[in-house]
Formats: sequence, structure tokens, C-alpha cells
Amino acid sequence: MAWDNIVHSAARVTPCAEDLLLDCALVETWLLQFLRDEVTRRRGFTRVVVGLSGGVDSSVTASLAARAFAPESVYAYRMPYTTSSQESLDHASLVAERLGINCVTYPIGGAVDALLSGDPDEASGHRRGNVCARMRMIVLFDQAFKLGAIPLGTGNKSERMMGYYTWHGDDAPPINPLGDLYKTQVWQLAKHLGVPDVIVSKPATADLVRGQTDEDDLGITYPRADVILHGLLSGYTPEQLVSRGHEAVEVETVRRRVDATHWKRQLPTAAMVSDTAIGEYYLRPVDYAR
Amino acid sequence: MAWDNIVHSAARVTPCAEDLLLDCALVETWLLQFLRDEVTRRRGFTRVVVGLSGGVDSSVTASLAARAFAPESVYAYRMPYTTSSQESLDHASLVAERLGINCVTYPIGGAVDALLSGDPDEASGHRRGNVCARMRMIVLFDQAFKLGAIPLGTGNKSERMMGYYTWHGDDAPPINPLGDLYKTQVWQLAKHLGVPDVIVSKPATADLVRGQTDEDDLGITYPRADVILHGLLSGYTPEQLVSRGHEAVEVETVRRRVDATHWKRQLPTAAMVSDTAIGEYYLRPVDYAR
Repeated sequence: MAWDNIVHSAARVTPCAEDLLLDCALVETWLLQFLRDEVTRRRGFTRVVVGLSGGVDSSVTASLAARAFAPESVYAYRMPYTTSSQESLDHASLVAERLGINCVTYPIGGAVDALLSGDPDEASGHRRGNVCARMRMIVLFDQAFKLGAIPLGTGNKSERMMGYYTWHGDDAPPINPLGDLYKTQVWQLAKHLGVPDVIVSKPATADLVRGQTDEDDLGITYPRADVILHGLLSGYTPEQLVSRGHEAVEVETVRRRVDATHWKRQLPTAAMVSDTAIGEYYLRPVDYAR
Repeated sequence: MAWDNIVHSAARVTPCAEDLLLDCALVETWLLQFLRDEVTRRRGFTRVVVGLSGGVDSSVTASLAARAFAPESVYAYRMPYTTSSQESLDHASLVAERLGINCVTYPIGGAVDALLSGDPDEASGHRRGNVCARMRMIVLFDQAFKLGAIPLGTGNKSERMMGYYTWHGDDAPPINPLGDLYKTQVWQLAKHLGVPDVIVSKPATADLVRGQTDEDDLGITYPRADVILHGLLSGYTPEQLVSRGHEAVEVETVRRRVDATHWKRQLPTAAMVSDTAIGEYYLRPVDYAR
């Protein structure tokens, strides 16, 4: 393949789950440094807020925050919708108690239902899920402002690459320690950080519809998706991945999700009419002069 | 100054309002082309939604959309909060009627008040304003999904550069035709497009508190801010602008707002742990191979 020469020498070996094994102690050290550097030194905050769903991503984020800052400077928000499970709420409490961080419960059901009542049509589950994710974003940013804190994000690389999240919802917080870790890597880090096993081992879910799981929605398990994502990002073509033993239908599932969601990983598109458009070009050396 | 050599030859002349005069016919042509290209050819949509506040930015955006697409493919949403003025609602209706576009009224008061009732503290006007802006974002995205449409943004370059907007609120829509036009340029384009004079000539306001105006909040008028912004972006230092006759306090007001809000014009910061982090680096040639 022509790409072999210009992309990556990895395109000549076979991507596998071992490629994604973390040195968890090293990653922990770096992510604590990242959080202190971004939150405090660069942005001047000493408090953080995080939405605690009871799932593994937000549990890991809260665990990192509790280590990076004083536990009393970390504010975890449980934001149940009317259909959220009691188990999820209990898991969130379990994590907050173990870490000794603040835990606030802020239900969003009233606001979501009030908003959707403005539409004569019945909102689908998909629409309702997006409204819930964005409503949680509003609560996190509003409460952070009240507390003089900054929100932390919890989205992992698998869902970010496959576009499996709500734009201006889960991806909204300005600082995200997990954004470059695949889901299977978040699981590794969770075990290393002592996140309760009941949380690490349960199936990932958006917790909007009972029994729904991420892996059912995506049509592929995270361990299989992560290796394919890693292969695609390392420069393999879909054909090369298939010829190296990956299921063609699974490679296509992942590739299509990545291809269809590039817009979610970029800033909005503004029409350029000048040579000082906001984006790559508006920063000049003078911005760094002081 | 050292910057003189590396930045821009304009740093040797004096920036003034004439620099910002538009060839409105040309700009109109380009923005219609931009809208058709981005909305339809690149993203596959034929319908758009736009939040119509009764102000000049959203009136211009709606006017462009009505020309770029069939008026019946444009859905304008009036989304009043309980304190929004009747005049603003009337101005929005006036624009929608003249353009022959759909106009839907979708109040957000119930949802905003339900959400803020979850906090025992009284939310400040500032917090309430951010919640309103983000609640309107939720409505626009939800209604767009229902209609198979895409939301258009209305933020202009002056407010984007000074950070005078709500993150994940007014700046959220994926496509924005006005984002590289200063407010004074939007006024020029509004007159050219026939936006009713009562809208072009009234003071800009977020319409949350009666009598509030953008220019009071910012501490500078748009005509003066725009020339200073243009000067800074063209490579002038604040000192050079002052020595060329701009008020020192106004230059400082603008510079400080630009400096303090760079984070609003960037994607959230994710910790990098690989050489395929999402951002500049995750796109490989294979993404362009088909």
C-alpha cells in the first residue's frame, strides 16, 4: 500500500491488545502533574467539579482529582434523571465516600421534562439522552462558577474517536485527564487506582434506558474496538487490518464511526473573511510578548 | 519595535474604521456560497435552524439563510426567558415575516427556573444568563435533530474575540457565517441585506436585564473596540495603538478581554498520553484516502 511508506512503520506489524497495556504508575504520575499544571498553575483554580455517574470513567477522574488536590477541594455531582438507576447513584456515593470528596445530588428531571414539554411531539430516547447530557453540562458549569471551581471532563478516547457522546454535553468541560486513554486503558488505570471492582467490572452504560449498554449500541466490544482504533490511528488501512485477522464487519463499524464524527472533534466552522480569522491564525507573536 | 519586522507591514500605518468597511455585495455572495457549501455539500443538510433574538446578528444570519436556502427550509426559534422584552420578540417576528421563514416560539423560562431551583442559593444574574444561553443551545440542537436540520451560529468577531458570550451556549452551533465579521461590519451587512432599521440602530443587548447593553458591560463602544481589535490582530502592540491616538484605558480594556479568553476559542484540553491524541495529530493520510 502506498500509505505504508508515508505513514508509520507500525503498519508492517500487527496491532494487538498488548500495545494498549499501560505503565499505570507512570500514567498516574503524569495525569496528576497534568491536572495540577492545567487547573492551578495555568488557569488559577484550586477547586474542581466532576459529574459522578457511578461509571468507571468518572470514578477514575474523581480518583485522580482527589489525589491531585485536597479531597475537600473536589466536588462530585450526582445528576440523576428520572430513569437513572439507584445502583448508579449508589456506586457514585461509594466512590465519593472512599475518596473523602464532597458529594452533591442535583436531579435534572424537572428541568429536562420542563424543556421537552415545550415541544408537542414526543421526544425520542435519543433526543432525551442528548438533552440530559447537556443539562448536566449546564449544572456542572453553573455550580463550578458558584464554587469558584473548574469542571473536569471524563470522556475517554474510545468514545471520543467513535463520536459516542453528546456534543456540548459530556465533552464540554475545559480540562480532561482521560481524553487520550482508550476505554480498556481506563479500566487498567481504574484497577491501579483502587476503584471498586463492582464499578470496573460492570458493563458501560449511558444509564438512560434500563439494560442499555455502550457495547450493544456500538455493535462491538471495547476490547475489540480499541485495538481496531489503535490500528487505524497508527496508519493501518481497514484492508490491512482485515488481512491481519480483524473481522471485516467490525473494522467497518469502527471506521464508519470515526469517519462520520470528525466534526465533533473540531471547533465550529466560521466563514473566513479576513487574514485574522479566529482559529489557527488570530494568535500573533504579540500575544506571547508579556 | 521588534515585532514590526516579523508581524505585519500594517504595523507602520494607523488602523482606523475605514479598514473595516466591507464590500457588502461581495461579502454577501461569499457567505451565501459558504452556507450552501458547508450545510449542503459538505454536511448533507437542506434545512437550518437559527435562534432569532430580535437583535442584529441573528437577523443577519436569518437573512443570509433565507437567501442561501428556500425560506421554507429555514426555522427561526424565538426562545424567550421570563424577563425577555416584548420588543425583542416583536423584532424577531418582524424579521421572520419579511423573510418568509418559519417562526416557532419556544419559551425556556420553565426549564431554566426548574434547573436553578435545584440550588438552595439564589443564582446571580450572571449565572442565570449563562444558564439561559445554554438552555437555548439545547433547544436549537434538539429541534434541529427533530427537523433533520443543522443549527447556525450568530456570534460575531467582536464578541468572540472579547469572550463576550457563553461557552457551549451562543458559540455552540457547528456553522457560523458571521464569526469573522466585527460588530460594525455586521451592521454594514445588515443595512445591505435590508434588515429593518429599528433593529440595526438599537443598542445591542443580551436582553436579560432591562436597560442592560453590551457596550455598558464591555466598557467600550463597538466602533472603538473594533478598531482596537483590528489593530491588535494586525500586529500592533498596545503601546503602538496608544501612541497612534487610541485611549490607553480602552486599549487596555480590549487587550485584557482578549488575553483572558483565549481558552474560550480553543477545544478543551485533554492530557496527551500517546502519539495519536485527538487534536492536531489524530488525522492520518488514510482519513483522506476515500
